[in-house]
This record gives sequence, C-alpha cells and structure tokens, in this order.
Amino acid sequence: MQNFEFHNPTKIVFGANTVAKLAKLVPETARVLILFGGASAEKTGTLAEVRAALGGRVVQEFGGIEPNPSYETLMGAVAKVRAEKLDFLLAVGGGSVIDGTKFVAAAALYDGEPWEIAQSGGAKVKQALPFGAVLTLPATGSEMNNGAVVTLKATHAKLPFRSALLFPKFSVLDPSKTFTLPAKQIANGLVDAFVHTVEQYLTYPVQALAQDRFAEGLLQTLVEIAPQALAAPDDYDTRANLMWTATLALNGLIGAGVPQDWATHMIGHELTALYDIDHARTLAIVLPALLNVQRDTKRAKLLQYGERVWGIAKDSGSEDERVDAAIAATRGFFESVGIATRLSGYQLGQEAVEAVLAQLAEHGMTSLGEHRDIDLARSRVILEAAL
Amino acid sequence: MQNFEFHNPTKIVFGANTVAKLAKLVPETARVLILFGGASAEKTGTLAEVRAALGGRVVQEFGGIEPNPSYETLMGAVAKVRAEKLDFLLAVGGGSVIDGTKFVAAAALYDGEPWEIAQSGGAKVKQALPFGAVLTLPATGSEMNNGAVVTLKATHAKLPFRSALLFPKFSVLDPSKTFTLPAKQIANGLVDAFVHTVEQYLTYPVQALAQDRFAEGLLQTLVEIAPQALAAPDDYDTRANLMWTATLALNGLIGAGVPQDWATHMIGHELTALYDIDHARTLAIVLPALLNVQRDTKRAKLLQYGERVWGIAKDSGSEDERVDAAIAATRGFFESVGIATRLSGYQLGQEAVEAVLAQLAEHGMTSLGEHRDIDLARSRVILEAAL
Repeated sequence: MQNFEFHNPTKIVFGANTVAKLAKLVPETARVLILFGGASAEKTGTLAEVRAALGGRVVQEFGGIEPNPSYETLMGAVAKVRAEKLDFLLAVGGGSVIDGTKFVAAAALYDGEPWEIAQSGGAKVKQALPFGAVLTLPATGSEMNNGAVVTLKATHAKLPFRSALLFPKFSVLDPSKTFTLPAKQIANGLVDAFVHTVEQYLTYPVQALAQDRFAEGLLQTLVEIAPQALAAPDDYDTRANLMWTATLALNGLIGAGVPQDWATHMIGHELTALYDIDHARTLAIVLPALLNVQRDTKRAKLLQYGERVWGIAKDSGSEDERVDAAIAATRGFFESVGIATRLSGYQLGQEAVEAVLAQLAEHGMTSLGEHRDIDLARSRVILEAAL
Repeated sequence: MQNFEFHNPTKIVFGANTVAKLAKLVPETARVLILFGGASAEKTGTLAEVRAALGGRVVQEFGGIEPNPSYETLMGAVAKVRAEKLDFLLAVGGGSVIDGTKFVAAAALYDGEPWEIAQSGGAKVKQALPFGAVLTLPATGSEMNNGAVVTLKATHAKLPFRSALLFPKFSVLDPSKTFTLPAKQIANGLVDAFVHTVEQYLTYPVQALAQDRFAEGLLQTLVEIAPQALAAPDDYDTRANLMWTATLALNGLIGAGVPQDWATHMIGHELTALYDIDHARTLAIVLPALLNVQRDTKRAKLLQYGERVWGIAKDSGSEDERVDAAIAATRGFFESVGIATRLSGYQLGQEAVEAVLAQLAEHGMTSLGEHRDIDLARSRVILEAAL
C-alpha cells in the first residue's frame, strides 16, 4: 500500500425529505447566494423547498450555470457575490453546478484574475467562501470532494482544479430528487461513477486489499442497479443506491493509498471542450480503447476485475482472452445503458483524433496514466482504437 | 436504505515514517499532554519519535493508561491538564489510550462530576479539548470515530459514550509500529475489526447495496490477511491492510443508512468488566451464540454473508444448513487465530451467566439488537449457548 493522507470533512445528510434540514445547516446569519442550472430546479419545486428552508436569511439567486460550467458564466456569480457582500454559497443541482460553485467560492476572494485558479490546478487558492450543496443529479461526486472542472469557452480549455479549502461544508442528498431526471442523465451518472471507480482501481496491484474490495463493490453495485435505475424512475431504493455509490466513487476513499490513472478523464475533457459531448459519454468512448492499449501494464488488475466484477473465472480462457472478455463486458455495460462507445457513434472521425491530440499538446497532457507513459503517440493509438 | 447523516472530519495520515509529521499536525503554540499506556511506547522508540516531532512545544506526559481505561486512572490526567493549563492531547497507543484520551478531552472542560459524561452516553459533552492520535495497535477504530468506552472500577461499570466533539483532529497510522506487538494483540485486532463489521452488517436487508459490499470486503480482507498477519510480524503490507481495515470497520461509513446490532458488544462489555477478559475475546464468545439464537430474524443476511464472505453456495444445502455453515465458519475463523469462543475456554461457567445478566439488568441493557428484542431472557439463552 502506498502512503496517503485522507481527510474529508464534508457532512452528508442523506435521505428522503432532507432539504428542510438546510434551516439548521446554513448559518442563521449567512447572506446566501443560491446557484443553480436550468429551469428544472424551479419546475420540480426544489428551489421553492430551498427558499422555504432558508427563510429569515438574506438570499440572492444565480441561475443559468450550464453543463461543463464556464468561466464566462461563473464570473457573473462572482460579481454578484462581491456586489451584494454575500458570504455563503448554496449549490442546487448536479456536478456542474457544484463545480461552478467551487470556482465562485474561490474566485470571489481571489486577488487577481480568477482564471489563474484553474490554470494553477487550484494551488493559488488561499481562501474560499463556505458553501453547501443540494444534489439533484447523481454522477460526479463533486458533492463530497474538493475538486472541480471549469471551461474557458474562449479557448475551449476545460481544466480541473482542487484545494483543501473547497470541500462542501455539507451536502444534502435526497434520492427522490432524481425521480424527474431524464433517462439520459441517469445513464450518464451510471457511467461517470463507473469510470471514476475504474480510474482509481484498474492500474497495478499495490496490496491495497480493502481499497480493491471497495472499488469492486461499487462497480458491482452499479452493474446491479443499472437496469432498474433506468426502468423505474421512482424506485427510491435504487436511486438511493445510485446516489450514494456515485458519491463514494469519488470522495477520496477508494483512491487512498493506490496508484491512479486519470488519462481517460483528461482525454475525455478535450472531447467535451471541442464537441460538447456529455462528460460521461466521452469516458465511455475513451476507456475501453485505453484499457485495450494499456492491457500489458494493467494486466494483473484487468484479470482481477474480470473475475471479481464480471465473474470471468480463471479457468475460462487464456489471460488475453480473459482480458478481452473484461474489456468487452465494460463496453457492453456502457452500451446497455444506451451510451455509444466509439467516436463514430457521435459522428466523429479521424479529424477529431487530430483535434484532440492538438488540444492535449496545448494543455501539456503528454504523460498521462499511472505510469506517465501515455504520451501523445499513445493517445493517438487510443483515440484511433476508439474510432 | 435508511436516512442517515455521515460526518467524519478526522484527518488520516497513513504510512511508514509518518510520526515525524506531528511537527505540522500539532499546532505550534499548543501545550501538549502525551497520553500512553505501558512501557512498550518507550521501549519501541515511538515516544522518542513523538517527543522529537513536538520539539519546541510545552509537552507533558501521562503514562499508565490500562486496557479498558478506567475513570480512576484517567482522572489523574484530567488533574494534570487542569493544573498545567494544557490545551492539546496526543494519544500514543491503541484503542484504550485513544478512548481514554477522549474521556480526558471532555472531562477536562466539564463542569460537574465527569463520570456523568459516560452515564449520559456523551450527551452531556458541550465542549472538549482538541486531540490527535498516533495509533500503534490496530483494532478498535477509535482513531477515526467519536466514540469511546470507559470503566468505573469501583462498580465494574463499562460504559460507552460518543459526541460530535470527540473526533480526533488527526490520526497518524504507521503500520510498522505494529511489528513489535505480541501475536495475541494482533489476533484480538483481527477479531475486534471483524465483529465491528458484522454488527453493522448482519441484521436485516434494507437495500443498502454499497454498504453491504463494503462490509463484505472488509470481512474478506480480514480473513485473507489473518494467517500472514500472525505469521510474519514485519510484513508491512499485511499490517497496513490490517490497520486500514480496522479503521474502516468503525469509522461510521459501513454503518451509514443501515440497521445496527451492538448486542454482542454490550454483553461482551460485561464479561470484560467482571472478568477482565480482553474485549475482542468477549466478542468471540458472544457473537457465534448470538447469531445462532437470532438466526430467524437475521436469516436473509446470514445467507448473504455465508455466500459472499465464505463461499457457501446457494445449492450447497438447505437454508438452515447454510446458516449453520456460516456460523461455523465464523467460529472457526476466531479459533484459527487462537481465540477461544466459549465461556468454558476462559474457565467460566453458569455462575458467569448469572453475573452478566445481573450487570445487564443493572445497566438497563434489556432491549438489545437491531429489533430491540434481546431482553434478559434472550441474553440468557445466548450466554447459555456460549457455555
């Protein structure tokens, strides 16, 4: 096991009818900015519940945070926080709204050009406003971690950042808030949580037995619940399992003490920035191709994954056959929830390979993966395998 | 899944050579009391490492905290904290030292008779000194939770308490600190962590899929590492897995959103208080008997446990045969690490049954278990089954 530090101070309030608990979670004297995305937060009644719970406080609102939240949009919220002297942020939405809120929390107190926060990967964050979240879309795990991704529309740059100052103080997770989500968003959430788990698990063995079991347990759970999560929008327990599993997939726990491989995310981010493909769908394009290209360095874990998650027994074939079967099962899982796993499924071809490679070069993404061996040449092999 | 709140702000610093990090973890202006147990902390050199890391601070020491720490002993530390105006506690040891430190942290600032802290289950704790821990004995999980148990020697009362104010600020977990532990302590740690996990898992199904997988993963890990943990004291990775697994077994995570059954602990505590049997050994006596007596209300989870942890396949027998096999495997695991699982193994007989029942009555432990259906009559059946 590798040495590690683990510290996750976010308080989780999980369950049905928990939005009302905001009344106690948000300080009574707070001057609050509620941040949200599109019209659904209003239509579903969630915003009304939030407003009611915050009764008695100064409350302003900032809507219109888009998927893959942009610097350009978020700076509007920063201006509002500064002008109105607001001191507590409350994200109401999914990972994009929470990520955007993290940027606003840091940017509002930042001396200088706030884009530097993203450019520095978060290293330049020295203070941040406190914030909480009401999660309505299970997928990214942003509700219980200190990371975020923002996009500079002007240059199609989608950059991740993190800071110990950017954990939510609390997150309210009410699974019934997911009942009204379109099936497409649930499918995205299943794939996003699956790939988050894989990127902290499918590397090389370091004798981290509990971390492996936890990761496998999350993957098994996602596979188990996927059909019902799509078929029965108001099945509370299934949605509760999706919500909690997606949170656990990226709260730092399964990644503590193990190598990590975020190459799929880094390549996927470029696809989103260039072509506006949903984040989870870019992961579904890249991961199966990447696993195939990296099959030698990942062999031991691919075999373990195949056996424990997919039941591909040791005596079922040669090592390469079992690796093939594990990758095929992964691709099959993504396809089974309606998500295409090749660039061609998104009407993209060789021109996209070239464009993504140019962006990876531009962003310095030239040594990705747990061994830092995915250079631009290997990213090309991966992308061409994903055509 | 049941509604839950989860909040665990303890920072974990895990790995080889991490004690030196105390230099940054403990505030520079702190007036520190180091609390420890017997002579081993000095002999192994751990105390010297701790002192060196704290250089420059006011540091006092309080040794002699016994296993199952007593109010009588701990009040000596409380007096020292008050007399010397110390403001930060550092536990160096295992669960008993950390539990004792939690009591001192609350008692030093308590207005009134500090035993009320234990009598109130922690409800009366309104403030506490900050404290950290250097863990040297993996077992209880106290290093990453807010609970503790203290004993009033005068009346043989062993009482648990907890408070949101009693999380360690940090815990340093260096697996190499366990190399010098006697095999008996490692065996105790394996059983303690195993039973902690079981008490949050073997109840009734509530569709908490990830929690179940996590619990099963911890149990599988303990079973997998036990032989090597005993045979090879200086196998770093094995000890690292034991240490992290024991922490995860009782940090609130696997118990979030599920029913819990702490009857084994409550009955076991009386055996320790009366006969000074190691905590883990009391659990090994009670649990197999309790599972057998409660087999009907626990049936679904016992079958799942048998299948997933012990490989007892659905087609291997009738339900009762598979439940029998799961309980036998549990007992066999405890015996395999050298821990007797019957009262007779500790030279105790019917007189102990009567004495424990009297203590349970005295302490109001008359409705234990996840269904509150373990009254004194059922505790008698359990204890007599453990003869």
